[in-house]
Amino acid sequence: MSLLVTGSIGLDDLKTPAGRAKNAYGGSAVYFSLAARLFTQVRFVGVVGEDFPADFRAYLERFGFDLAGLEVRKGSKTFKWAGEYDTLTSDARTTHVELNVLAEAGPKVPAAFADSEFLFLAATHPQLQADMIRQVRSPRLIVADTRDLWINTQREALLQTLKSTHGAILNDAEALLFTGQTNLIQAGRRILEWGPKFVVIKKGEHGSMLVTSDRVAVLPAYPTPQVKDPTGAGDSFAGGMMGYLATRGDLEFESVRDALARGTITASFTIEDLGTHRIDGIAREDVEKRLGEYAAMLRVK
Amino acid sequence: MSLLVTGSIGLDDLKTPAGRAKNAYGGSAVYFSLAARLFTQVRFVGVVGEDFPADFRAYLERFGFDLAGLEVRKGSKTFKWAGEYDTLTSDARTTHVELNVLAEAGPKVPAAFADSEFLFLAATHPQLQADMIRQVRSPRLIVADTRDLWINTQREALLQTLKSTHGAILNDAEALLFTGQTNLIQAGRRILEWGPKFVVIKKGEHGSMLVTSDRVAVLPAYPTPQVKDPTGAGDSFAGGMMGYLATRGDLEFESVRDALARGTITASFTIEDLGTHRIDGIAREDVEKRLGEYAAMLRVK
Repeated sequence: MSLLVTGSIGLDDLKTPAGRAKNAYGGSAVYFSLAARLFTQVRFVGVVGEDFPADFRAYLERFGFDLAGLEVRKGSKTFKWAGEYDTLTSDARTTHVELNVLAEAGPKVPAAFADSEFLFLAATHPQLQADMIRQVRSPRLIVADTRDLWINTQREALLQTLKSTHGAILNDAEALLFTGQTNLIQAGRRILEWGPKFVVIKKGEHGSMLVTSDRVAVLPAYPTPQVKDPTGAGDSFAGGMMGYLATRGDLEFESVRDALARGTITASFTIEDLGTHRIDGIAREDVEKRLGEYAAMLRVK
Repeated sequence: MSLLVTGSIGLDDLKTPAGRAKNAYGGSAVYFSLAARLFTQVRFVGVVGEDFPADFRAYLERFGFDLAGLEVRKGSKTFKWAGEYDTLTSDARTTHVELNVLAEAGPKVPAAFADSEFLFLAATHPQLQADMIRQVRSPRLIVADTRDLWINTQREALLQTLKSTHGAILNDAEALLFTGQTNLIQAGRRILEWGPKFVVIKKGEHGSMLVTSDRVAVLPAYPTPQVKDPTGAGDSFAGGMMGYLATRGDLEFESVRDALARGTITASFTIEDLGTHRIDGIAREDVEKRLGEYAAMLRVK
């Protein structure tokens, strides 16, 4: 099953209580792909500048990502982001950002990717997300992420985009902000009225929640004592989730719930080291082993 | 298996975004017992004043609690508490408190209760908790709750009391405060060094965590969309947990984890109405039915 992701690709400066990194490989599409590749092949769509480092491209190629949709734009510069975490469970404070190529026209889906069956739209301007949807012929599953910036500034466009999706994924604070609710289940239900068939609410260290019109599942985060950097947790959660769904084929409630469990596990690896240093070094067996421990932990009798 | 609880009994004025109640039956021992009775008989130890309402006593008797340890103290007045919640997931703001009899000498364990095998010490002055421990002959399981007040003001006495316990239960903020850690697992491990064999960390709407020297389990809260009043959630969590353990007999990791699941379910009922109005109206079948749904929700494959 073909899985297409589109999102940012960039270089990150990271500072957390556990360490720091300069010019680390980052971006939502990168974290997503590093998690999704543990389940399936990834078609990668995004734009970088002509300064895009050769070693970064080689890195992406190493994992077998299909880079036919990676545009290197002449005269443009690659996205840069710098963030700091005051604690290992807090949100990042953006200390510096150069949108560069991300502020220009969005990427194009190559003809070879137009038959993609699974489509993940990382958080970006909802208009760009809608453009992507139009370029893919008849996807079986479209899931869109978003964030506070778009909720606050592009609400109408976001609502328009959501109409064309099957699933929405966002974090708890964003779900409450978007809906004006105070209860996450009710927030999820409100978002369902806007189009998606399911909503996934990410709760960081507190796990995740799946909401459909008649069912709810909540899963805890995998309890790792060794958190070093929360960067990319949400995107690698989505990668594990979508990667599993692409191999699974059906969209039954339990299947999506099991996909959230995979996302939980891939995210748990991501946060164990700075940047992509942990998630890029694991194999499918590592995911399965940890998933087994996680499932046993939850096997309440 | 005999389960003894000691804690507060009092009258609460409650104000939440979903409603308000005056002179509601409350207190940690009451919420605990209303949950524990769903699994086992409860021996109740506490002190009230001579103003203790006859209808409150009749209420407690209705559930078959053994009130041999309920002292009605001449010349003293019953504990009163008033609290408000700004949101249904926030902590209570205490708007009024009359400690009354709670500020005097602690309760006595009647001779008939000295053979109790399971002992729960709700949060109170750690010296009083230690007094209770001394009055019970050879309990198989002693679990103590505590709170920020005692962590901040009676740290040495609390550490002393913890040495005699098998389990500690406290909320996430208290665990971090107590240990100076920023990670809950590490906080739990630190508390284990002080005596208990297991630590239960309550995370409110985010569930709970069980920490032993070599294992960790995290369980989510049961996702109820109908929260009306968080009062008593922690005590009825402890009641469900201890009530189940008292019938279970063994203290294997999985058994304690399954006990946390029962606590999760009893707490989920408590918060669905003001005061004790929901937890006092349910039966064991209601717990089992919801537990079945909860276990199915978590049966990740």
